[in-house]
Amino acid sequence: MKEKVFYGKGMKSIKEEYPDIYDAVVDLNEAVYSGKVLDYKTQKLIAVAIAASNSDRRAVKKQIMSAVSEFNVSKDEVMDVLRVVLLTSGMPPFIKAVNVLNEVLNE
Amino acid sequence: MKEKVFYGKGMKSIKEEYPDIYDAVVDLNEAVYSGKVLDYKTQKLIAVAIAASNSDRRAVKKQIMSAVSEFNVSKDEVMDVLRVVLLTSGMPPFIKAVNVLNEVLNE
Amino acid sequence: MKEKVFYGKGMKSIKEEYPDIYDAVVDLNEAVYSGKVLDYKTQKLIAVAIAASNSDRRAVKKQIMSAVSEFNVSKDEVMDVLRVVLLTSGMPPFIKAVNVLNEVLNE
Amino acid sequence: MKEKVFYGKGMKSIKEEYPDIYDAVVDLNEAVYSGKVLDYKTQKLIAVAIAASNSDRRAVKKQIMSAVSEFNVSKDEVMDVLRVVLLTSGMPPFIKAVNVLNEVLNE
Amino acid sequence: MKEKVFYGKGMKSIKEEYPDIYDAVVDLNEAVYSGKVLDYKTQKLIAVAIAASNSDRRAVKKQIMSAVSEFNVSKDEVMDVLRVVLLTSGMPPFIKAVNVLNEVLNE
Amino acid sequence: MKEKVFYGKGMKSIKEEYPDIYDAVVDLNEAVYSGKVLDYKTQKLIAVAIAASNSDRRAVKKQIMSAVSEFNVSKDEVMDVLRVVLLTSGMPPFIKAVNVLNEVLNE
Repeated sequence: MKEKVFYGKGMKSIKEEYPDIYDAVVDLNEAVYSGKVLDYKTQKLIAVAIAASNSDRRAVKKQIMSAVSEFNVSKDEVMDVLRVVLLTSGMPPFIKAVNVLNEVLNE
Repeated sequence: MKEKVFYGKGMKSIKEEYPDIYDAVVDLNEAVYSGKVLDYKTQKLIAVAIAASNSDRRAVKKQIMSAVSEFNVSKDEVMDVLRVVLLTSGMPPFIKAVNVLNEVLNE
Repeated sequence: MKEKVFYGKGMKSIKEEYPDIYDAVVDLNEAVYSGKVLDYKTQKLIAVAIAASNSDRRAVKKQIMSAVSEFNVSKDEVMDVLRVVLLTSGMPPFIKAVNVLNEVLNE
Repeated sequence: MKEKVFYGKGMKSIKEEYPDIYDAVVDLNEAVYSGKVLDYKTQKLIAVAIAASNSDRRAVKKQIMSAVSEFNVSKDEVMDVLRVVLLTSGMPPFIKAVNVLNEVLNE
Repeated sequence: MKEKVFYGKGMKSIKEEYPDIYDAVVDLNEAVYSGKVLDYKTQKLIAVAIAASNSDRRAVKKQIMSAVSEFNVSKDEVMDVLRVVLLTSGMPPFIKAVNVLNEVLNE
Repeated sequence: MKEKVFYGKGMKSIKEEYPDIYDAVVDLNEAVYSGKVLDYKTQKLIAVAIAASNSDRRAVKKQIMSAVSEFNVSKDEVMDVLRVVLLTSGMPPFIKAVNVLNEVLNE
């Protein structure tokens, strides 16, 4: 499973207790992050954007941490993603994600 | 205004009747699509992803059409974006966006 | 039932076939639109705002039409509501609602 | 693929052009609708509820049509699902789904 | 009021200070959970599904706790509900709900 | 910048590190809260409604605190806003906002 961001507590319990769900998620994950044209890093930034647009604090944190640890993305890169969130989703999701970003890259 | 996607009927009426809103949107748009690191095309693909994740048919169509006309993005590129939508937002928004994509790139 | 906006086809069929649901909705509606302090017109504008923020074209149209027919609200009033939608919910829901507004007040 | 609801135009094009995505979705679908305890029909009704709560007209229609054709669910059954949508998601998604229900079971 | 899940702090204060709202909610609740065909337990599982699909941690917890205390629902039953959430709403809401489930049924 | 609600930690860091975004947000904010007809207080109540409808605890708190400190809005006024949220968005967002309201106006 290329993408490690889902290896949280939740997925660990799924793996043990519901292996059929786990296998399906792993396969889906593999298909998703094996794009034909876009590289994996760009897809990760897209995942950050979607999590931020949905105002999902937990998912934003997971995705930013994963993007930083796997690709060493910079604050400016994530902020370029969040700029689009500001325009398309408004101030509250933008500010929420900016706070998470500052927290993760402990300003 | 770099980004032409918002020049629909709505923005035209805003420009004439509410120039203060129009000017603020143009400035915001400029700030958003002048990222420090990511190029404009990547930001456009992120806008496609957010529109698709929100299941907003009209916005998906606008953003895909804009991405095609400005950057000649391919079907594979958009599909790589939509793969992430499938994983993070589920089947219904994914299929809705796939249908729009097929429609725009008149399969 | 003070608020007539829900008397569409849907509510008519509910009234006939599911009177228990109908009665509960009528009572809820009555309690909602009998605010202690805010007048009914302000509450209607709030309903427009929520529908617009949720990018729900149908609900936006219903609410604007209802606000126009019951209170003769002006385009400027609705636009002042939509300004807040722009800031808090982003461009796509804003433009969608502006298009509906222009349509209803057939510019 | 037990669940036929996704065999729309979108999935057909995916199958031909992006078989890796198609296979992953089929496997996921299989894992999802092979619950340990709940029967498939109950899971279908849950899918109706989620589509209705998300105010997704197209998905509501697909899911209701699928539930009717596969399990011959009655109007009362779907309405019992939509009652929960009314309480948890408010009037606009409820009415939108009621309209679809009336349309599908062409009253 | 059949459904006790809403008897949190919020509803208690509403009862005392805004009895008109309280009464309307109690009546609505009664109408909602008095389905014609589906049993109350199935409707509760539907409420779990909607809360999970909306990524609402607090509501998921309330609904799962209520379903456990009123019907002694098992982990497998809730997971069968969450399987549908995974397919229709994506990984982040699914994992969030799985974490809550593990927490409530303190694995 | 008329509206002080966004002067949280997030906006402070934006001002220092991304002045172009900051300036665009300040201008947008100015255009939004300079309505032609509605007064600023009504627009603030609309912002409370949208935050509550979106089930965004953090934004609800910010907006209620801001409305209280700037306009000394009463609990009854906010509750009249939340009544509309109950009807249009359902119980969970309503109760979440009621809890925040009770917390802010520390009952």
